[in-house]
Amino acid sequence: MNGDDGGDGVLVRPIGCIRSPFTDPAGMPIQPAGAAGVRGLVEILPEFRDGLADLEGFSRIILIYLFHRSEGCSLRVVPFLDDREHGVFATRAPRRPNPIGLSVVRLVGVEGCRLVIEDVDVLDGTPLLDIKPYISAIDAFPDERCGWFNDFARDVRKVQADSRFAEPGP
Amino acid sequence: MNGDDGGDGVLVRPIGCIRSPFTDPAGMPIQPAGAAGVRGLVEILPEFRDGLADLEGFSRIILIYLFHRSEGCSLRVVPFLDDREHGVFATRAPRRPNPIGLSVVRLVGVEGCRLVIEDVDVLDGTPLLDIKPYISAIDAFPDERCGWFNDFARDVRKVQADSRFAEPGP
Repeated sequence: MNGDDGGDGVLVRPIGCIRSPFTDPAGMPIQPAGAAGVRGLVEILPEFRDGLADLEGFSRIILIYLFHRSEGCSLRVVPFLDDREHGVFATRAPRRPNPIGLSVVRLVGVEGCRLVIEDVDVLDGTPLLDIKPYISAIDAFPDERCGWFNDFARDVRKVQADSRFAEPGP
Repeated sequence: MNGDDGGDGVLVRPIGCIRSPFTDPAGMPIQPAGAAGVRGLVEILPEFRDGLADLEGFSRIILIYLFHRSEGCSLRVVPFLDDREHGVFATRAPRRPNPIGLSVVRLVGVEGCRLVIEDVDVLDGTPLLDIKPYISAIDAFPDERCGWFNDFARDVRKVQADSRFAEPGP
């Protein structure tokens, strides 16, 4: 590790919690694309409320959260969409060295410390680390080469998760 | 905090380091869109090398990293592009409750533990937390409503950072 610092790690703390209809990893949509219209809530801790100012102007937001039900870490995983193994960094699977997840969800409204969201593909009770505005000019690249995923892009709306990443890894 | 767990925080540790031409926050591009063609490297620690398998099939990747030179946290910030204050969660500014950054960069090649990347808008030595493949079918939303940012979208390629977030916050 040659970074200037941060080499020993940093403690991250939830700023709130994501509420969704999904209480069990098995049967969940595997991406927001498969959770179209599924409504949820983001509950922000009151001390962070000021940070939400002007967020309602954005129609999508990026949620960065902890995969709190994922145990252990696997460098090679068989993702839900494929039956072949891939390096974990070439997948969005939860069992990562740092269990950090990312979802782009629709922002329906802001009500005090609560955000009403749609296209929610995360477990109920997921600890939230950060919210960033989704900015099409910065974040949208519609025609990228997407490796092994290209063969399965059509399936992302219908394939559901199972419990494979909620059990201890090898 | 009503999450199932994670309420006390989680220690995240770098999996590697981002190398870029930018050694000083002042004068940096503020987003990958303003860093088109700027080349950098991702150096992954050897123990995580297996996790890179099949990543080379993707033309863009999402880097999740620590804003290691940002000090403190401000819930309201004046972002580089605007002269008005916004809630930090409605901006991509670094001085956040959890100092986690996100950049979508072009993946040029994979050479062992090194990724050659382009459109690099981060400081040299930035500690890397995670890599995710950029998947257009999941991540690209070209026509979203982008709040205060809409007035400044054209400027994102030419405005540069200053040192405002590298100094202690109020």
